Formats: sequence, C-alpha cells, structure tokens
Amino acid sequence: MKAYKIPEATVMRLSIYSRYLQKLIENGTQTISSGEIANGVGVGSAQVRKDLAYFGEFGTRGVGYNVEELFNHLMEILGLDEKWNVIIIGAGKLGSALATYQGFIDRGFNITAILDIDEAIIGKKLMDIEVEHIDLLSKKVKENNVEIGVITVPGSVAQVVTDDLIKAGAKAILNFSPNVLRVPNEIILRNVDLSVNLEVLSFNLSFHK
Amino acid sequence: MKAYKIPEATVMRLSIYSRYLQKLIENGTQTISSGEIANGVGVGSAQVRKDLAYFGEFGTRGVGYNVEELFNHLMEILGLDEKWNVIIIGAGKLGSALATYQGFIDRGFNITAILDIDEAIIGKKLMDIEVEHIDLLSKKVKENNVEIGVITVPGSVAQVVTDDLIKAGAKAILNFSPNVLRVPNEIILRNVDLSVNLEVLSFNLSFHK
Repeated sequence: MKAYKIPEATVMRLSIYSRYLQKLIENGTQTISSGEIANGVGVGSAQVRKDLAYFGEFGTRGVGYNVEELFNHLMEILGLDEKWNVIIIGAGKLGSALATYQGFIDRGFNITAILDIDEAIIGKKLMDIEVEHIDLLSKKVKENNVEIGVITVPGSVAQVVTDDLIKAGAKAILNFSPNVLRVPNEIILRNVDLSVNLEVLSFNLSFHK
Repeated sequence: MKAYKIPEATVMRLSIYSRYLQKLIENGTQTISSGEIANGVGVGSAQVRKDLAYFGEFGTRGVGYNVEELFNHLMEILGLDEKWNVIIIGAGKLGSALATYQGFIDRGFNITAILDIDEAIIGKKLMDIEVEHIDLLSKKVKENNVEIGVITVPGSVAQVVTDDLIKAGAKAILNFSPNVLRVPNEIILRNVDLSVNLEVLSFNLSFHK
C-alpha cells in the first residue's frame, strides 16, 4: 500500500492535470509552472501546488516542472501505468455508450466484455466487442482477470449482479444504477449519478438568479 | 442572488441527501437525525451536519430533522423547486443514453430537444423526443426557453456548438466532449469526463496493492 491518503477531489484533479500535460507533450512543451497548469485547467495555482505536494517535490524552483516527468508520475499515481480489465454489465443505452466511450480507451482501460440478459441485444457488436449473455459473468471475470465491474443494469437487479461480480473476483465496482449497493469493506465502490451534474448547474443557475 | 458560497462537493452531497430523504418520505419516515442520514448515504455525521449548517438551522436538538421539510429545503437549494429546460446536442450513443436517462426525468429536468447533424439519426425517436437537425439549434433554444445545453458532440465541433448555444440564450453548459471550452464569465460550465470515475477506482486499486 502506498503511504499517503489523498482526498477524492484531489485524485479527480490529478486526472485532469494529467490530460492537460498529455496535450502539452503532444505540442512539444518541455517545462511548465504550477501557474500555467492552473490557467490551463481553470483552478487556482495554490490548489495545483497543494495537490502536487501530496506526492513530494518534483518541480525545480524558478524552472517549474518537467512536463513529461510530471505526466508519468501522475499516471503512476492514478494507477494508469498499468492496464485495468473492465467488464460492463448491462448493454442498454448507457452501457453501450460506455462500452464505446473513447475516453476509457484513451486512458488505457481494457473493456473485456459487455453482458446483458436481453436476447434482442445479445450478439450485437459494440466496436469490436459482442454483447454476451449475463450467465457468462463469472467465466468472463475469471478468464479476463477483471478488476473493475461497471453496472448499468436496472436498480432491481444491481445488487445481485454486484454480488456475482465480487464472488467472481472483481475488486472495484462503478455503479451507474440508482440503487445503494452493499459491498464488503475491501471492495472499492463508486456510485455515479449523472443527474448530479445537472443539479450542480441548476444550483448555480438558481443561486445567480 | 442567494447569500452563500457553497463548495461543489457540498452541492453534490446535498443532491445525494435529497435522494435519500425522498426514499424515506416514500416509506413514511417523519423525522431523522444527522447520524441516520450519514449512515444511509455513507458519509460521516459531522460532514452531514456541516453541509446542512450552510443553510441555517433546520433540525431540533434531540428530535432531529423533519424529513419532508428538510427534503423540500434541499430541493429548493438545488434549484429543483423549478423546472429547467435542457437541450442535448449530439444524438450518438452517449447523447441517446442521456436523452432517455431516467435520473434526469425523476429530478424534474425537462429534455426539450435532441439535435444531430447525421441524417441517419435524424427522425429517430428517443422516448417521445424525435432527433432533429442541428440547424434548428437557435430556434429550439429560444422557443423552449432552454437554460441548459448538454454537449455530446465530437471535440472538433464542441466549441462551435457551445458558441451557438450561448448566442441563442443558454445560461449553462454540461460538456461531455473531451475539449476545453471557452465561455463568457456569466455562463456556467461543467465538464464531465466519465473516465475520471474509472480513474478514482484505478487510483484506489493501485493504492491498496
């Protein structure tokens, strides 16, 4: 286990910094200051320095950060120096969108399979992955060494699917269903409710009225 | 304008609390303590009290909160005591998933239209909304009093679409494209990168190895 405890908001910003640095690498930029990173991604420069300080000193005073070094370090912190095998359960509209989401592929997540119970969907191709029957869940998790299960099934079956994923060996669950899921302590669970994003907007719209 | 400045993480938790309270109302629960809310949603009870304290005192010491009163108050804070008109630009897999996302409907967001440039998609029905041509953007925003534009187009056209939305009168943009968008100061912009969710998991998986 690594020896630091990082707030989730910091992890999310590190992810954003790393994307920005990747663009800079593509453009041939060699060094950058925390202020330039801050401007580039739209957060305060004190925040950038504080976020990066969790991981020790990489910058050189007056020179700034070496872009490629910082990028590689961030990717390592985010666990993106290795590949993670993902399975998607539920091939409805959201599951299909996630299975073909370029952002996952760009960041090195390996979508190994997508499963559903609906015979009308099974057999369809999403990019180069064929939708398969949910009965194959345990087999697919095991044979692909799946670490991460993504749940886009209806709420009524989300807990059963989660239990099956964990029993088969998944270590982390990304839950897009509206249900509160119970998982053992050692399993990492993240709930995503896409409406929260719209509610941050409605909060701000209402706030500024 | 309301007279408080709230961290975004708090706004996101208020959204989660409000969903939990809604379930309690459906179950007939009348009062609840901050500790019970904390347990129900999986955050610390000090955090719940701190989040709610931004908005003054609603609880009664030793009795707790009246569930319905607290729920109504949270919905008002989140701007969900009114309807917001939304337009989705881009009817690919992600746009289609969002157009039919039950979570948006449940929270009162009104998806007024979904537009695309692809003739193969235009005319298709998503729930009861027909995909229409992107040339109608300005007309649709104006005639439906759209406040919020959701962008799921490819990065290469995201800025043009954003400019058009703002010119037509949209006040807030939810951006699912990978591009950094430039908007005037008075426009509320929120970028959603779905991979960040997987990266919080890979960070934690790597952290616990």
